[in-house]
Amino acid sequence: MIASIDPRTGTTVEELDVSTTTDDLEQLCARALEAAAELSALGRAGRATVLRAMSAALEAHREELVAVADRETGLGPQRLNGELTRTAYQLDLFAEVLEDGGYLEATIDHAGPTPMGPRPDLRRMLLPLGPVAVFGASNFPFAFSVPGGDTASALAAGCPVIAKVHGAHPATSVLCRDVLLEGARAAGVQGDVVALVYGREAASALVQHPAVTAVGFTGSLEIGRMLADLAAARPSPIPFYGELGALNTLLVAPGAARNRGAEIGAGLAASFTLGVGQFCTKPGVALIPAGPDGEEIRRALISYVADAAAGVMLSERTADSFAEGTERLTSLPGVEVLARGGQRPGQGWWGEPLLLRADVDAVRAPLTDECFGPVLVLVEYGSEAEALAALRRFGPALTATVHADEEDHPLAAQVLQHAMGSVGRVVWNAFPTGVAVSWAMHHGGPYPATTNPLHTSVGTTSIRRWLRPVSLQDVPADLLPDELRDEPRTPGLPRRIDGTPTLG
Amino acid sequence: MIASIDPRTGTTVEELDVSTTTDDLEQLCARALEAAAELSALGRAGRATVLRAMSAALEAHREELVAVADRETGLGPQRLNGELTRTAYQLDLFAEVLEDGGYLEATIDHAGPTPMGPRPDLRRMLLPLGPVAVFGASNFPFAFSVPGGDTASALAAGCPVIAKVHGAHPATSVLCRDVLLEGARAAGVQGDVVALVYGREAASALVQHPAVTAVGFTGSLEIGRMLADLAAARPSPIPFYGELGALNTLLVAPGAARNRGAEIGAGLAASFTLGVGQFCTKPGVALIPAGPDGEEIRRALISYVADAAAGVMLSERTADSFAEGTERLTSLPGVEVLARGGQRPGQGWWGEPLLLRADVDAVRAPLTDECFGPVLVLVEYGSEAEALAALRRFGPALTATVHADEEDHPLAAQVLQHAMGSVGRVVWNAFPTGVAVSWAMHHGGPYPATTNPLHTSVGTTSIRRWLRPVSLQDVPADLLPDELRDEPRTPGLPRRIDGTPTLG
Repeated sequence: MIASIDPRTGTTVEELDVSTTTDDLEQLCARALEAAAELSALGRAGRATVLRAMSAALEAHREELVAVADRETGLGPQRLNGELTRTAYQLDLFAEVLEDGGYLEATIDHAGPTPMGPRPDLRRMLLPLGPVAVFGASNFPFAFSVPGGDTASALAAGCPVIAKVHGAHPATSVLCRDVLLEGARAAGVQGDVVALVYGREAASALVQHPAVTAVGFTGSLEIGRMLADLAAARPSPIPFYGELGALNTLLVAPGAARNRGAEIGAGLAASFTLGVGQFCTKPGVALIPAGPDGEEIRRALISYVADAAAGVMLSERTADSFAEGTERLTSLPGVEVLARGGQRPGQGWWGEPLLLRADVDAVRAPLTDECFGPVLVLVEYGSEAEALAALRRFGPALTATVHADEEDHPLAAQVLQHAMGSVGRVVWNAFPTGVAVSWAMHHGGPYPATTNPLHTSVGTTSIRRWLRPVSLQDVPADLLPDELRDEPRTPGLPRRIDGTPTLG
Repeated sequence: MIASIDPRTGTTVEELDVSTTTDDLEQLCARALEAAAELSALGRAGRATVLRAMSAALEAHREELVAVADRETGLGPQRLNGELTRTAYQLDLFAEVLEDGGYLEATIDHAGPTPMGPRPDLRRMLLPLGPVAVFGASNFPFAFSVPGGDTASALAAGCPVIAKVHGAHPATSVLCRDVLLEGARAAGVQGDVVALVYGREAASALVQHPAVTAVGFTGSLEIGRMLADLAAARPSPIPFYGELGALNTLLVAPGAARNRGAEIGAGLAASFTLGVGQFCTKPGVALIPAGPDGEEIRRALISYVADAAAGVMLSERTADSFAEGTERLTSLPGVEVLARGGQRPGQGWWGEPLLLRADVDAVRAPLTDECFGPVLVLVEYGSEAEALAALRRFGPALTATVHADEEDHPLAAQVLQHAMGSVGRVVWNAFPTGVAVSWAMHHGGPYPATTNPLHTSVGTTSIRRWLRPVSLQDVPADLLPDELRDEPRTPGLPRRIDGTPTLG
């Protein structure tokens, strides 16, 4: 039994009579292997059709999906409608990725002489890994859960998905699976290209199952690392792509602070409290100039936070963890409370926005660790050297943000240099919350931002996680996959031929 | 002290008075971090110059390098000269990869509207990870050791290398490091872009050092897995690229066996005994038709092996392990000896070529495990169904080879389908030994062929192992890396702009 709980009241609305036995898992995995063959046989065009049918099915069930997700997450219809739009768009975008075909990295080296001697005919492309496991996040019941980016990119690659039902939105998980399969059936797919497992035990068994070839995970450092360790310890280790999150820094250079402090302060306040601070991209620390230069930012933040209402959080665990985290932070030497938002009601799980100030000398763990929820720590720096030194005391992260005007560029260039070495995305004169789904997006970063710094969980290149290369040497033309023939049926395929990139 | 031993006699020729203390390692890593900054600042053109200077330095020291390596490995001047050519070529080819620039995956999405709402300006490219550790293989003292593919691709990416001195060719390792640094100095590089550690303890400490961002390894399953586990268990886990090797299968279809059995048999015999069978791509099992169809192949193999001389092996460990492996195989039920090559001399470490025959029913572990050295197991199949069933009992591998003529294509297509799902390279009507260094080469495969199925250790795409993506959002044009500007200084850079691939 899994309880579906309303976080606004803390009451169980529904109990799902579901579980995954060892036998169930065997059957799920066997069906996933069959589905892998079906997805592969569909080819790129066929899979694009499936993804678009899934996107259409999500749209067709929008009202129902948003209602269930809102009841389980408290994120509100506006945010959830936006998230569903993003989720459907993601599926459509991967259909475009398939039609483009560049993701295959198709490469042909014709036979010929080389300084090493004669070379055979070699043709390389990427192939799907096989069934993959997906673990979604509590804070994105659509976009980073059952129908989310991991699922969309894996299906595009040709890999069936077995997802864990999320304990904080189980009914949403089940409905999403049903809707995705409805879309798949409409596109003529017979197999279980998306399936679910229930409960922690089944989830651990899933990560260790021989049929599973890779894992996508979005969630906490604790659970993510535990599962990553399981994946690495298998008799046959498999890739584990965990987006765990870390503390995101934001630096305001002196010029920007002077020129537009009020605007930056208001934007920053809106960013760190957006979605009750429940974003892995939430700015957790802002380094601002000490003294008069930082005054406007400080004032805008304090005013915003003092007036801000408490927000409903995703789950009891999230709310407890936020309460513990903020208690830990406020008890640190050199840390003071600048402002606190409205009180939480008597029932349900709520978080109160909190603005803290810390001495530069206090910048060390646990102040440098992520605290998930609506809390921001202001650190005031006295000089540019002090700002850089403080910044360097933070670990890797998904993002780093810089607010800098023309006059700040000598400092800003140094901050950029440092940030490029330690985060996945550098944001300029904006705020890190909000992650576009596009070709140039990278949502990742060195550990603990993710467990694998080479890959992204958002954007078109996230498909690379589910693919492995194969080279075919001297294979006869009529046995080659279409994409590796000298004249593929579908023109316009970007390929590298004899060392030269071509547009097909 | 590390002994440099002549495998032809088993005598220690030289003792190297070397070790790496904990302090030494700290200093090596600190210098590697400095070297990372230097390599990065050189840019693509600068690093191409460095690689070419290293290649030239290897050529300039060819005689000395081959002599030392021959004395330590017994591989012979012809093979070692060829290997050095390959190693120098590899460095030159990565200079071309740098000049091409496509490996950066530079991608620009200009700001604009999307179905998700307005998108900021996003620009993505790959950046070097930082210092990396390299563990070379005993069987390729140049091409897969200190100056080998891991080093060439890492330096090209902008990552300094700290390599472990190989116990089977320590003097070669040291000389190669000196020669590479001589090349680097000639190109104006000040830093220690290539450094060495000595001994197992220092090597384990290296894998666990916070400054090390990834590991490249070529060698045994046992040591590879041990180091992979260390890398995964770090407080901050890092990517581990282990090429461990596995048993490579070769299938001869009935038509090919009938039409050119003698030729295939002779080629196969030459392939599995090449370099005394000390290749990770050595065919370990050949499935051939039972009865008259396979007769010519069998006869050619027996005749070749019976006349073949014993060959000097790389080390005492290699020779012992080969002796144990062949003893294990010959003692299995359903396995018989078909032919054995010439006896080994009284001193040094030698391996005798060995041809075995196994019943189809005997195809299970340990027969399906790799045995490194000049041994081939012939498995005779009665029907095509039996051939496919036997093939499916083998695990993943680096390669699978098919010999098939036009008339064999229905079977061959099935074999190809299976092979594409389980190996890194499928070879047609040729032999798997010999791995071209090119754009379309993939040298990898699912575990235990490698520890990471997404990446290759040979060919131009091996550079991807040492790079991680970064996205820059709304960063001002004058602060962008050249490759991400709208008009880069160097034209001809392949990029994806607003979703469309371009040739620059």
